[in-house]
Amino acid sequence: MGGDNAPDVTVEGAAAFLSARKEAFVRLHGDEAKLKPVMAKYSSVADRMEIVHTEDVITSDMKPSQALRRGRNSSMWNALEDVKEGRANAAVSAGNTGALMAISMLVLRKMDGVHRPAMTAAWPTLRGRTVVLDVGANLEADAAQLVTFAIMGEAYARAILGIERPTIGLLNIGSEEMKGHDEIREAHELLRGSELDLDYQGFVEGDDISSGKVDVIVTDGFTGNVALKAGEGVARMLGVRVREALTGSLFSKLGAVLAMGGLKNLRSQMDPSNVNGGVLLGLGGVSVKSHGGTDGRGFARACQLAADLATSHYRDEVATNLSKIRQKGIAAE
Amino acid sequence: MGGDNAPDVTVEGAAAFLSARKEAFVRLHGDEAKLKPVMAKYSSVADRMEIVHTEDVITSDMKPSQALRRGRNSSMWNALEDVKEGRANAAVSAGNTGALMAISMLVLRKMDGVHRPAMTAAWPTLRGRTVVLDVGANLEADAAQLVTFAIMGEAYARAILGIERPTIGLLNIGSEEMKGHDEIREAHELLRGSELDLDYQGFVEGDDISSGKVDVIVTDGFTGNVALKAGEGVARMLGVRVREALTGSLFSKLGAVLAMGGLKNLRSQMDPSNVNGGVLLGLGGVSVKSHGGTDGRGFARACQLAADLATSHYRDEVATNLSKIRQKGIAAE
Repeated sequence: MGGDNAPDVTVEGAAAFLSARKEAFVRLHGDEAKLKPVMAKYSSVADRMEIVHTEDVITSDMKPSQALRRGRNSSMWNALEDVKEGRANAAVSAGNTGALMAISMLVLRKMDGVHRPAMTAAWPTLRGRTVVLDVGANLEADAAQLVTFAIMGEAYARAILGIERPTIGLLNIGSEEMKGHDEIREAHELLRGSELDLDYQGFVEGDDISSGKVDVIVTDGFTGNVALKAGEGVARMLGVRVREALTGSLFSKLGAVLAMGGLKNLRSQMDPSNVNGGVLLGLGGVSVKSHGGTDGRGFARACQLAADLATSHYRDEVATNLSKIRQKGIAAE
Repeated sequence: MGGDNAPDVTVEGAAAFLSARKEAFVRLHGDEAKLKPVMAKYSSVADRMEIVHTEDVITSDMKPSQALRRGRNSSMWNALEDVKEGRANAAVSAGNTGALMAISMLVLRKMDGVHRPAMTAAWPTLRGRTVVLDVGANLEADAAQLVTFAIMGEAYARAILGIERPTIGLLNIGSEEMKGHDEIREAHELLRGSELDLDYQGFVEGDDISSGKVDVIVTDGFTGNVALKAGEGVARMLGVRVREALTGSLFSKLGAVLAMGGLKNLRSQMDPSNVNGGVLLGLGGVSVKSHGGTDGRGFARACQLAADLATSHYRDEVATNLSKIRQKGIAAE
């Protein structure tokens, strides 16, 4: 079990997940001596938790290449082997992101027709959530890859947001004359002209990530990562500023106390643990990345997301669409 | 005079600028019949305003190529000719961005050693402002261009933020194994090893745009544009959410009234008109773009920024640094 506060937070989160999902079962990979005392705190769900012992761990400072070389029999690797061998429907980790991506790709392999997997984020918007992908698994993406991301993101949004027919936008900049890189324009033509039966809405801009204009926003991993971090930075800055504004004088302090109910709601809406869980799409099994610094509620949320995805039709839907574009020679063989 | 609310807002802004800067003089380019009655409202500064009549305009829907073909003798073109001919120290426009960039490049020409000009933004952070460039003048940037952006951004930050030795960061993503595109890594090496005497701090990530970690953030125009729009989108969403939180119940409404002073301060800090003004750096003269939808105060802010830059040592400093890297064969000839 990885993450900044493992195994306390991860076991707490797993237990909260089990309380909410009565049919679920969790296999805890890690050091039995450390896991057992924590697990003992959650007796009501203990019969649906099982420890799979190992003392090997992927540390947070390991490079993906090191993790691949030395990670066999680590808790992370074993969890992914569980998925591969059908002992589990999904793996969830709060550990090293790069290592999780690398081991996931090696153990679970890519789906047919997927060039490279893509990492997702579910971003809070004025209307709910928008799925953004890729947010960091790939530095670049050509037109065919962007189309694949659109296919995977659409099925994913249906699975986890419960939207019957998610809308899709392609991230671009607005300036007319120089609209987009070649690969973006090419992907735009492919999505517009495709027989994929996707609800493709065309180009969107950076501010649409928060406006909720579309359900899925497709971009390369570099741009997606920068955009999301930029948004997180602004949210953090505004959080500090609002707090300052509400504690600056005696009057504003009193005001803040009175407004506390509303502000609490706001905090809960914007709470990162409510949107915790990035998924590496395009693999032969479900692998979910929780924030390393999340709390128990956040880790439970990541488990729920993993369960939702594993029990959805996501993979069949993606496979169907990928085979369509493969017939047209777009996707990878 | 362009912009959504021209000429009322632009003349109001110019007049406010003149009230603050007693030594300044403004040439208003546009239709005299429309400008005269608005100008009459600002009698205290009227002796430092002059109308340069033309009825030709660059409309907001004109493409840059059309503006170049048909824009000669338009108010925008004439204002830039003023700068070229030394009748003015700087041009400020709230009109068509693409057209302003294209005409600025044609009329003012590029500085020696600059491949392509870069558009700036001065982003509010927890510690003040951070200059981000490029935010949309170029889709892509190679290593030499990124280095040029760093040189221009540094001198610009000194000129408008009054920081003696601005720090510089290169925008990248965090994932260790696949850190950055080739051009970013190459620019990193050039900036680290250079004899430029810049305070280069290395890589920064998207959230540093709002943290104030460095004074200047360098990136290509596509990434910069997406990042800034993503940040704007989050700010807009949170603005709506805070308002909802503070008006949701009778208690929170009462609280909001009491906290009004602090919230007003916050609004003023985050007011876009306080950061209005994008500058196209790397030209033979100062050309400032105001938001089309700004108010009088915002337009005045853009005028002040133009005046600060025009009266600074910005261009000499950039020329000195560019000649250094040209000797090393990095910059354009």
